[in-house]
Amino acid sequence: MSKYTELKRECYEANMELNALGLVIYTFGNVSAVDRQHGLFAIKPSGVPYETLRPEDIVMVDFDNQIVEGSLRPSSDTQTHAYLYTQWENIGGIAHTHATYSVAWAQAQRDIPIFGTTHADHLTADIPCAPPMRDELIEGNYEHNTGIQIQDCFQERRLSHEEVPMVLVGNHGPFAWGKTAAKAVYHSKVLEAVAEMAYLTLQINPQAPRLKDSLIRKHYERKHGANAYYGQ
Amino acid sequence: MSKYTELKRECYEANMELNALGLVIYTFGNVSAVDRQHGLFAIKPSGVPYETLRPEDIVMVDFDNQIVEGSLRPSSDTQTHAYLYTQWENIGGIAHTHATYSVAWAQAQRDIPIFGTTHADHLTADIPCAPPMRDELIEGNYEHNTGIQIQDCFQERRLSHEEVPMVLVGNHGPFAWGKTAAKAVYHSKVLEAVAEMAYLTLQINPQAPRLKDSLIRKHYERKHGANAYYGQ
Amino acid sequence: MSKYTELKRECYEANMELNALGLVIYTFGNVSAVDRQHGLFAIKPSGVPYETLRPEDIVMVDFDNQIVEGSLRPSSDTQTHAYLYTQWENIGGIAHTHATYSVAWAQAQRDIPIFGTTHADHLTADIPCAPPMRDELIEGNYEHNTGIQIQDCFQERRLSHEEVPMVLVGNHGPFAWGKTAAKAVYHSKVLEAVAEMAYLTLQINPQAPRLKDSLIRKHYERKHGANAYYGQ
Amino acid sequence: MSKYTELKRECYEANMELNALGLVIYTFGNVSAVDRQHGLFAIKPSGVPYETLRPEDIVMVDFDNQIVEGSLRPSSDTQTHAYLYTQWENIGGIAHTHATYSVAWAQAQRDIPIFGTTHADHLTADIPCAPPMRDELIEGNYEHNTGIQIQDCFQERRLSHEEVPMVLVGNHGPFAWGKTAAKAVYHSKVLEAVAEMAYLTLQINPQAPRLKDSLIRKHYERKHGANAYYGQ
Repeated sequence: MSKYTELKRECYEANMELNALGLVIYTFGNVSAVDRQHGLFAIKPSGVPYETLRPEDIVMVDFDNQIVEGSLRPSSDTQTHAYLYTQWENIGGIAHTHATYSVAWAQAQRDIPIFGTTHADHLTADIPCAPPMRDELIEGNYEHNTGIQIQDCFQERRLSHEEVPMVLVGNHGPFAWGKTAAKAVYHSKVLEAVAEMAYLTLQINPQAPRLKDSLIRKHYERKHGANAYYGQ
Repeated sequence: MSKYTELKRECYEANMELNALGLVIYTFGNVSAVDRQHGLFAIKPSGVPYETLRPEDIVMVDFDNQIVEGSLRPSSDTQTHAYLYTQWENIGGIAHTHATYSVAWAQAQRDIPIFGTTHADHLTADIPCAPPMRDELIEGNYEHNTGIQIQDCFQERRLSHEEVPMVLVGNHGPFAWGKTAAKAVYHSKVLEAVAEMAYLTLQINPQAPRLKDSLIRKHYERKHGANAYYGQ
Repeated sequence: MSKYTELKRECYEANMELNALGLVIYTFGNVSAVDRQHGLFAIKPSGVPYETLRPEDIVMVDFDNQIVEGSLRPSSDTQTHAYLYTQWENIGGIAHTHATYSVAWAQAQRDIPIFGTTHADHLTADIPCAPPMRDELIEGNYEHNTGIQIQDCFQERRLSHEEVPMVLVGNHGPFAWGKTAAKAVYHSKVLEAVAEMAYLTLQINPQAPRLKDSLIRKHYERKHGANAYYGQ
Repeated sequence: MSKYTELKRECYEANMELNALGLVIYTFGNVSAVDRQHGLFAIKPSGVPYETLRPEDIVMVDFDNQIVEGSLRPSSDTQTHAYLYTQWENIGGIAHTHATYSVAWAQAQRDIPIFGTTHADHLTADIPCAPPMRDELIEGNYEHNTGIQIQDCFQERRLSHEEVPMVLVGNHGPFAWGKTAAKAVYHSKVLEAVAEMAYLTLQINPQAPRLKDSLIRKHYERKHGANAYYGQ
């Protein structure tokens, strides 16, 4: 029995949750879960439908994108995951989807404005849309460069990946992360819900104002601040 | 066995119905049910997912927000419920959701116009959107002040909480109430349906007129008037 | 055992189908099925949720709106059904819903333009939206007058109720009919599907042209014409 | 036992998948599967609801539209299938639906612009919308001429049916094809998902740019190119 059985199961369940939540169809999307101690991560195999995916199909890969265990090819987006894991050392899972409203904002090349408390309960900033990559980066090591593009976006805007656990990659779609793979999936679902609400808000009132700072702080702090009083 | 077992079950079932109706995801939203005789109410514990919620997890709280029974922390919105119960003495249940279309109107800071009989079957006025609170109220006792904001909105507009059993809190989301917790959930669902219909109506015809007074009166009266002939 | 048992079951099943198809929530909507030989019809009782509705709850009513059999009060819309049955002698069932997209067009007070073959497979004209009634008709025998309003709309526009088996009542919602109660429900679902498609069509292209006459004729005739070759 | 039992089952399952994926209601839509060796194809019978369809109901038809086996009348769209099979000799299945967003674009008479990688993962061009046919073609052999209209559209735009396995027929709806009937259904579902995303994209940003060429090539090639590395 593999010593990664537990991590593979965690990764498998997070991938299946992506499907159960309606964030993906067919073989779209992927979730990974990291093992910091051994310097590797579990990730969905490429092009395998969720209907037939099994825990033992999950592939173990190191941060140099080498397969450590598994007979299947890992997700084509593996290098994006690897890059983000090496850059952001306190994240434990990453999820990528083609969820409808998230993709629509990415295709529109627009940040999702913070319009309400549903958004502020989870993050204090607009959800950034990283611009599409320059041609030489696309034609080079594309998936690795997608990771760089995400990190560059966060650096340029002085965003913290801890406070903003999600991003849109322009013309492509969303990536989200968290302490665990399950939390990364949670953030993917929240992103999709917020993306739909923001879309409808602008349809009802194209001049809808962003949420005021006091409400952003209040809602974020009551859930995530030093004196948080949400949850158990 | 607790003497509040029955009330807790009523509260539990109303909360689960919120989830079954698709009005909430994860731990979003909460419903309470009041016991007027003992001056306290049952409410969902904070941050507990609906999937794992049990009747015995429901928390009993008095109108001063003190826990009377229960080992979990009550909903972070508890003080809003307490305030409304003390002000409106004939309501028996309150529900709060982050349902998609309701939140979109709240984020757009727009009242929902009364466009049709589906709306008039339930209330005779536009569904009010209370403005976002002033900064000092947000930074003060926020949840208590949310209750004040709702009541102020009803007073300023001379609305009756009996005839208008629902409200949008600007940039936040909907609250609804009724004779029972189940009725509060019913009003939450009706609000969401009316919010979607009104959204689509304006997309099809931005100049759509409000429902004429004779139709508002007719539909409301046949369901709720002295000579009502709807229902058994 | 009632001699109307079979008709009640047909009516019951058509009502339940309304719910299964997602065209109604709670107690909204109603379907009736007529018995031409005995001059009466079976209809849903007023205000009874679909979850608890039973075949024996269905009420038998004559064309003067008198209860012939049943212990429950019939639908508040009963007189609209009765009027249409007396006017249009070859219809066997009528359905009324508050389905989302159908209601949105009714609230927008707009006919649904015939934009495509999905529409033309079922009817050759725009789906008419009858104007809201005059105040004296609303304050009079409202439900009876709703029937008159529908028929007046068909007469003024020279529409045949056989070729156009559905209508929107302005600010209210859709009514549909057919040879049987099941067919009336079928037309209610088709109306909702066509209403959604037409809404989206105008969002994508506000200048979208109506379907050309040759295509309207072709699609309608291949399904309903003398030389129809659709179906078995 | 028929020698076409296996092909009929393949065709049956592809038709049922159309229904399971929410791409059709009632009797709408149809899928066929070809047997190149014998020069015939299996297709859904006309007007049979998916709920009651059985594998043995599938009809075997040759390329001259003659029934080879089966007691039911084949789909009214059979001649469109036959024409495309004779013209495009390497396709194995064809699917036709009235899926909501696909039909909306067809009714809007608009190509679906390639806005993102979800689209480019499957095809490199805008999804073409063939213009509605001229009146004499509609009044002639309509379904055969629908096939000609599709092929003419591909020839005029110099599109390859292998690289663009789907089309919208103006005012009507989508057709999709592939190596197998299952693949044709897959393309129908992808088309619907891309159609919804493109619709939302334009609502959020009416000036949304098309995907840049380098990204189109990258995403298409990594899945379908000589050096493809997506999948197993």
